[in-house]
Amino acid sequence: MTRPGEDELIARYFGPLAGPGALELKDDTALLTPVPGHDLVVTADAVVAGVHFLPDDPPDSIGRKALGVNLSDLAAKGAAPMGFVLTLALPPDWTETWLAGFAAGLGEMARELGCPLLGGDTVKTPGPLSISVTAFGTVPAGRMVARTTARPGAAVCVTGTIGDAALGLALSLPNPPAWSAAISLRERAFLIDRYRNPQPRTAFARAVREHASAAMDVSDGLAGDLAKMLRVGGVSGTLALDRVPLSPAAKAALAAAPDLLPTIVSGGDDYEILLTVAPDRLDALSRNAAELGLGFAVVGKVTGGTEPLVILLNGAACHLTGGSFQHF
Amino acid sequence: MTRPGEDELIARYFGPLAGPGALELKDDTALLTPVPGHDLVVTADAVVAGVHFLPDDPPDSIGRKALGVNLSDLAAKGAAPMGFVLTLALPPDWTETWLAGFAAGLGEMARELGCPLLGGDTVKTPGPLSISVTAFGTVPAGRMVARTTARPGAAVCVTGTIGDAALGLALSLPNPPAWSAAISLRERAFLIDRYRNPQPRTAFARAVREHASAAMDVSDGLAGDLAKMLRVGGVSGTLALDRVPLSPAAKAALAAAPDLLPTIVSGGDDYEILLTVAPDRLDALSRNAAELGLGFAVVGKVTGGTEPLVILLNGAACHLTGGSFQHF
Repeated sequence: MTRPGEDELIARYFGPLAGPGALELKDDTALLTPVPGHDLVVTADAVVAGVHFLPDDPPDSIGRKALGVNLSDLAAKGAAPMGFVLTLALPPDWTETWLAGFAAGLGEMARELGCPLLGGDTVKTPGPLSISVTAFGTVPAGRMVARTTARPGAAVCVTGTIGDAALGLALSLPNPPAWSAAISLRERAFLIDRYRNPQPRTAFARAVREHASAAMDVSDGLAGDLAKMLRVGGVSGTLALDRVPLSPAAKAALAAAPDLLPTIVSGGDDYEILLTVAPDRLDALSRNAAELGLGFAVVGKVTGGTEPLVILLNGAACHLTGGSFQHF
Repeated sequence: MTRPGEDELIARYFGPLAGPGALELKDDTALLTPVPGHDLVVTADAVVAGVHFLPDDPPDSIGRKALGVNLSDLAAKGAAPMGFVLTLALPPDWTETWLAGFAAGLGEMARELGCPLLGGDTVKTPGPLSISVTAFGTVPAGRMVARTTARPGAAVCVTGTIGDAALGLALSLPNPPAWSAAISLRERAFLIDRYRNPQPRTAFARAVREHASAAMDVSDGLAGDLAKMLRVGGVSGTLALDRVPLSPAAKAALAAAPDLLPTIVSGGDDYEILLTVAPDRLDALSRNAAELGLGFAVVGKVTGGTEPLVILLNGAACHLTGGSFQHF
C-alpha cells in the first residue's frame, strides 16, 4: 500500500545508496547480472527493535548493524558482497531525523564493503521498527564454504575476540552490572561499540574460501554455534575455554567477575568467523589473518563420533551448572 | 538470537518447501546457480498483520499471499520464478497450528508456480506478525520489462479484473457495507477470495516479456499505479473508467452502490499486470491472454507530455471529488 511520501522518502534517503542494478529505485524490482562462472550466495537476516537492538541505539549504528549481520554471513561463506535489498517496517512514530541517521549508517557500511542497495520495500507497522535485509554475494562456482562439512582432525578456529558484544549489551541496559565499575571508561565504550557496530570480516572471506573446510559466522554465541556446526556436520569436537580469544576489556571484566565466562562464550552478537581447517592449511590461514591485522585463534578440534560438543576447562571436560562451568 | 525450538520448527514446516539451493536449510545462506545468459530479477515485499492482511485471515491464505505478492512482481517483469527467501517475525502468541497452516499455503503456491524456498530467518517480535519475502526470477539477459519505458502511442492494458480485492476487503471487515446485501453469497465469497488469495499471473510472464514495452503489477490501485508508471516514464496518458474490466461480482456491487467506483480503481491488492504495448503487438498479446483463459483489456493510451494521468468517464476528462468521479 502507498505510504504518503514513500517515493520522496526513498529517493531522498535511499537513492544515494543505490547501485546500477537498482534501476534508480524506480521499479518494483532490481536486476542482478550474475558474474559468469560464479554462484550467488544469498542470506537473509532481520533485526527487530527491542529484540536485536535497543530502541534508543543511535540510528546510524542500527543501519550499520542491519546490513553488517548479513555481510558477516557472506564473509563466513567465502563470498564477496554484490548488493542487498532492504525491507523497512516503520512504526507510526518514525521521524525523518531517525531515518536520515539510519540511512547514513547503512550507506557507510554499504560503501565501505562494496555492497550497494538494489531495492526493497517500505511498509507501515503498528509494532516495533523491523528491518529485514537480504544480501547477495558471489563465489567462484562450487566454492561456497558450507557449514556442514567439518571433518575429524580439523582445527576449530575463530577470528577476532569473543564475548565483547554480550558484555556491551549488558553495559547498555538501564541498570549497569556491578563489574562495570571494575573496567575503564574506554573499555566500556569499546564493549558497547562491539555490541552496536558489528565488523563483518569481509576482508577475510577470500582466505576462508581458500583454506577453510567449514565455516559460519558467530551470531548466537560461540559454544552454541560450534555445537550446531558439529551437529549438522555429523561430527563431534572440543572447545577449550582457556583458548577463547578475549579483548583486554573482556579480560578486565572477567577478572572482576569470573562468572561472566558463560556470557562471554554463549552471549552472541560476536559476528566473528568460526571455521574448521585441516592442519596443513592452518599456517596459511593464520598468516592471512595476521596480514589483515585480524585476530585468529585455534580454540578446539573436530573429532569423530556424534557426541555433543565437549567443553574443556584447563584440559578437562566441564559443563555449565548453576551459571558457571564446572568439571564433571 | 536462538529461539528455542527454531531448528525443529524450520525442519518440520519449512524443510518440505526447500529446493536444492536451500542446502537442506542447514546453512545460514542459500546458493543460487544462475542460468547462463540470464539476468536475475529480485523483488522484496513484506506483509504485516493488520496492515496487509487481517490477523484472522486463514493462515494458509496468509502464506499464499506473502509469496503471491512477490510472484506477481516477477510476472510483471517477464521473469520466471527461481526461488525465494522468507523472514518470519513471530509474535509471542504464535501457535503451531497457525504455523502449519501458513506453511501449507506457502508451500502450495511455491509448488504451483515452481518457486522453492531457499532460506531465511525466523525472529521474535513483540509486535504484529510480519512476513518479508525476497523472490528471485530469471529472464534472458537484458530482457527484463521495466516500469519506466512506456512510450507515446502505446496502448495501456490490464489483465484479469480490477477492484475485486478492495471490495473483498470491505466485506471482510467487522461491519459489512450496505451493498453487501445486494450481491449473492457466491459473489461475496468470490470477492473475499480475491482479497485473500492473489493469483500471480506467472503464466503470462513470457507474453509480457515478448510484447510489452513497460509493465508493473497492480498492487496499490490501478489509477495510482498507472499514474506512477507514466510519471517515471516521463510520459502522460489516459485511463478510461468505462473500460476497466470488472468481474460479475464487482459489477453487481457497483450497480447497487455507484460510489464504489473510486474504491474499485484505487483500492489496491489486485495483483494483475498493468502494461503498455505498441499497437502492432496488441493482437498477439491479447491472443496469448485468451489462450491462458486470462482476461485482457485495453484501458487507456500513452501520450506525450508530462501532464498527470487523464481519467476519462464516457470519453470526457473527470476528476475525483467528494468520493466520486466528476466531469470538469
